[in-house]
Amino acid sequence: MLIAEPIDVPEWVNGLAIGVASLQGAIYASGFRDRKLDLFGVAVIGIATGLGGGFLRDILLNRLPIALTENWYILTALVAALLGMFLARIFRRIDWLITVLDALALGLFGALGTTAALVSGLPFVPALFVGVITAVGGGFIRDVLLNMPISVMHVGSLYAIAAAAGSIVLLGFNEANIGLEYSVPISVAVTTILRLLAVRFGWSLPEQRM
Amino acid sequence: MLIAEPIDVPEWVNGLAIGVASLQGAIYASGFRDRKLDLFGVAVIGIATGLGGGFLRDILLNRLPIALTENWYILTALVAALLGMFLARIFRRIDWLITVLDALALGLFGALGTTAALVSGLPFVPALFVGVITAVGGGFIRDVLLNMPISVMHVGSLYAIAAAAGSIVLLGFNEANIGLEYSVPISVAVTTILRLLAVRFGWSLPEQRM
Amino acid sequence: MLIAEPIDVPEWVNGLAIGVASLQGAIYASGFRDRKLDLFGVAVIGIATGLGGGFLRDILLNRLPIALTENWYILTALVAALLGMFLARIFRRIDWLITVLDALALGLFGALGTTAALVSGLPFVPALFVGVITAVGGGFIRDVLLNMPISVMHVGSLYAIAAAAGSIVLLGFNEANIGLEYSVPISVAVTTILRLLAVRFGWSLPEQRM
Repeated sequence: MLIAEPIDVPEWVNGLAIGVASLQGAIYASGFRDRKLDLFGVAVIGIATGLGGGFLRDILLNRLPIALTENWYILTALVAALLGMFLARIFRRIDWLITVLDALALGLFGALGTTAALVSGLPFVPALFVGVITAVGGGFIRDVLLNMPISVMHVGSLYAIAAAAGSIVLLGFNEANIGLEYSVPISVAVTTILRLLAVRFGWSLPEQRM
Repeated sequence: MLIAEPIDVPEWVNGLAIGVASLQGAIYASGFRDRKLDLFGVAVIGIATGLGGGFLRDILLNRLPIALTENWYILTALVAALLGMFLARIFRRIDWLITVLDALALGLFGALGTTAALVSGLPFVPALFVGVITAVGGGFIRDVLLNMPISVMHVGSLYAIAAAAGSIVLLGFNEANIGLEYSVPISVAVTTILRLLAVRFGWSLPEQRM
Repeated sequence: MLIAEPIDVPEWVNGLAIGVASLQGAIYASGFRDRKLDLFGVAVIGIATGLGGGFLRDILLNRLPIALTENWYILTALVAALLGMFLARIFRRIDWLITVLDALALGLFGALGTTAALVSGLPFVPALFVGVITAVGGGFIRDVLLNMPISVMHVGSLYAIAAAAGSIVLLGFNEANIGLEYSVPISVAVTTILRLLAVRFGWSLPEQRM
């Protein structure tokens, strides 16, 4: 097993993932017109969706959240959220593109979370746990703030499972001494493709049985 | 831009802010009789409202929450919450006073949060973010615990915006090398006055548009 | 007052408490069939119930959560949650046993939380606060994730009060220079017995008055 070194994901990739997630969150929130969210409320939902997973990751890893170390993280999430709110009607017409970008963001967040956990010295299972939380945490916080059932826990299209699969691939490759420069892109691809196939073919986990 | 030094807010001022927020939280919670909260539940809501913003601030800044370092923080919140519950009917008759004190607490929490963020070395936007979270975080947690829509995100009377305005003033003054002994009181005044004017004249943010 | 040293609770005791709490959480969640939780959702509820209190404790104490340092914590919670889901019908027939084990887990989580707070140097009231949060935090998070009213805040059978009583006993003994090897078992016993008596005789806190 390699000692993991922090990897450099290009900032624009990270920014794109945050932006897509925030956009998603704002479009989702804007669907509840009866809730009378104001501009601030939509901005909160957007920021929470885009940055919430990273906040949870860094709080769990007991370190200063990366999104607080530079101005552009919060600004990106904020601008994307406002864009999502004002142009929700347009974005809904290209929802296939949003779905694709969101699957990519899911994969990227998962890989970044898993990597950060490895760098912090966490063993396999906790690193997987942190990876999945990073990937789906933004949606969790979004739903708690909207006082809605948490969608990722309900019968759906393998959202969390896709994140877990990518994280397991990354962790397995790491045990096999394969460097992050190979395992991260493969992990992102596994999550993204599995998620998109699940959406396309309607795969889902069985409902809980009694 | 100055390197921010921690400032000494007199403890009774901080205690007053915590007490007012906890009182508020308990009065608010006591309005839901159908919820059958017991004494412990009301105490939890009070403590969460009074100390929740500070807890979120310190967790985000990756440090031991100040409210855990001395006995009086939690005791103040607890006593104020019980007072609020038992005397809710009386306090409702002087709700203008509660509104004024709450606006003051909003300003103080915001200024303390922003200052703490500067002392931790955060740049402008994250410091603003932490300041606003400190100011409105108690109400957030209160509403999540009560399983209610989060009131600060809905069309209302510039609650979060007033906190943000005070925080921006403080951060701007800091960039201009004006010391915290001047900027903190001005920041508190800006937030308090803006909030009270918004309540008085019914100013609000536009609802999200579609 | 003694300087508290970390104590060694045998791992199987800790594991049993986590397992019982996770089992409980999954059984509870499986009662809401209309919610359409999937397997992942039930696993999340189980892990959150079993480990949530410890996560909150460690986040408040500003340290890496213990459950992230070894594989077995999360695995225990996960296996217990799946067991609880698949065998919910059987476990419901022995619910007196679950109630007893849950009271024991409550006492143990409370004592471990209080002890950890003392080791971190917290004074009396914050240590009590952290102890109670550790004991009831898993149930809090469970209810927030299920978007349900938080049961521990409502008129019930002295759940949080029993945890607080055990924590106060431990803290009092510590002030009186009595070592943790005596105070921890007594604290666990106080919480467990008080909780079971409350369930048996229907003791509860008064509802909030207006």
